[in-house]
Amino acid sequence: MTTRADPPMFDAAFQAKLALLIAWRRDVRRFRDEAVPQAMLDHLLDLVQLSPSVGNSQPWRIVSVTQKARRAAIRANFEQANAAALQSYQGERAALYARLKLSGLDIAPVHWAIFCDHATRQGQGLGTATMPEMLDASVSGMIATLWLAARAQGLGLGWVSILDPRAATATLDVPSDWKLIAYLCIGWPQEEHADPELVRFRWQNRTLAGRQVLER
Amino acid sequence: MTTRADPPMFDAAFQAKLALLIAWRRDVRRFRDEAVPQAMLDHLLDLVQLSPSVGNSQPWRIVSVTQKARRAAIRANFEQANAAALQSYQGERAALYARLKLSGLDIAPVHWAIFCDHATRQGQGLGTATMPEMLDASVSGMIATLWLAARAQGLGLGWVSILDPRAATATLDVPSDWKLIAYLCIGWPQEEHADPELVRFRWQNRTLAGRQVLER
Repeated sequence: MTTRADPPMFDAAFQAKLALLIAWRRDVRRFRDEAVPQAMLDHLLDLVQLSPSVGNSQPWRIVSVTQKARRAAIRANFEQANAAALQSYQGERAALYARLKLSGLDIAPVHWAIFCDHATRQGQGLGTATMPEMLDASVSGMIATLWLAARAQGLGLGWVSILDPRAATATLDVPSDWKLIAYLCIGWPQEEHADPELVRFRWQNRTLAGRQVLER
Repeated sequence: MTTRADPPMFDAAFQAKLALLIAWRRDVRRFRDEAVPQAMLDHLLDLVQLSPSVGNSQPWRIVSVTQKARRAAIRANFEQANAAALQSYQGERAALYARLKLSGLDIAPVHWAIFCDHATRQGQGLGTATMPEMLDASVSGMIATLWLAARAQGLGLGWVSILDPRAATATLDVPSDWKLIAYLCIGWPQEEHADPELVRFRWQNRTLAGRQVLER
């Protein structure tokens, strides 16, 4: 890549469309049973390499889960964790939880497990001596970038965190220094929505708690 | 917000411009000494409330650091951590490290410390029983969203992680359940670049280690 060569201009129309993209990104759990072209996935994989990372460490490691037995094990893992979570709620809240669809593991054509390589030497430790969690944070930032880029292509992404991460890591047989950050379902959404499913199904409204800025 | 009402279309031209935005986002450490309009910051703060978060917990808490004494304490914190980091490198690598500019704390008009509220009840614990680190991951994803939205406005953002996070948290006098995720410098960049400063100054090239997809 070149340096200081013709920086692009991002005009008001683009800024407005970017705001729409951010507003219409969703955590998708309801997918159509339809494949995603490999070229589209390759494009996304290329793009997210440009995500920010501490010390330019690029610590994300991507596992594409395609084997039937492994997908079944991940799904059983989710179902067990989800049943345990249901037990932790009572009354109306438990009934509400039971009605939520919390993963797209059943239909999503693409399953990506995203790990952080804690053994990487890339970046030479810059920025991680004081805050070692910066490696994991870099991977989470990459996923947020992927989420937006996927949505711009019309693809839905769902982040499944109702999983025992140790069991999922064992299922996927990865190097021992890799930490599971996310298990992602990717595919074509059945519907588009401007509001999160957890709002629509009355689990949790948006609030302004995180919009208050504390002055110091 | 309405549901299923006219989802926006993101065409090839927008997708290409989004790819340029991702490519030209930088970790900025060299700012112009020029204020950022409050309306622009307010717009960004509104927008990032729509970032993904586990259980719709929106656990980010934003502290705007404006007091001179607090800014000086954060800068001293950085300088001490940076000097300690320099000691951990030898020879040519140490000389290289000493030449890097690793924060914009000197000039950036806007300093935002971003915390994660570990005591929040918002989200009702959904998705965090098995992976409690999902709250921190949600905050990191919000920052990645902010980074892109700021860059689209021409604003630079730099993430300073060479800080003792406990000392920084004490300096900022926040609730005890808040965990520091990032200290951000925001302002107008002196220059636009397509390549990261750490590549340009020969600290760490990009690699393809994170581009290999493991099949499982």
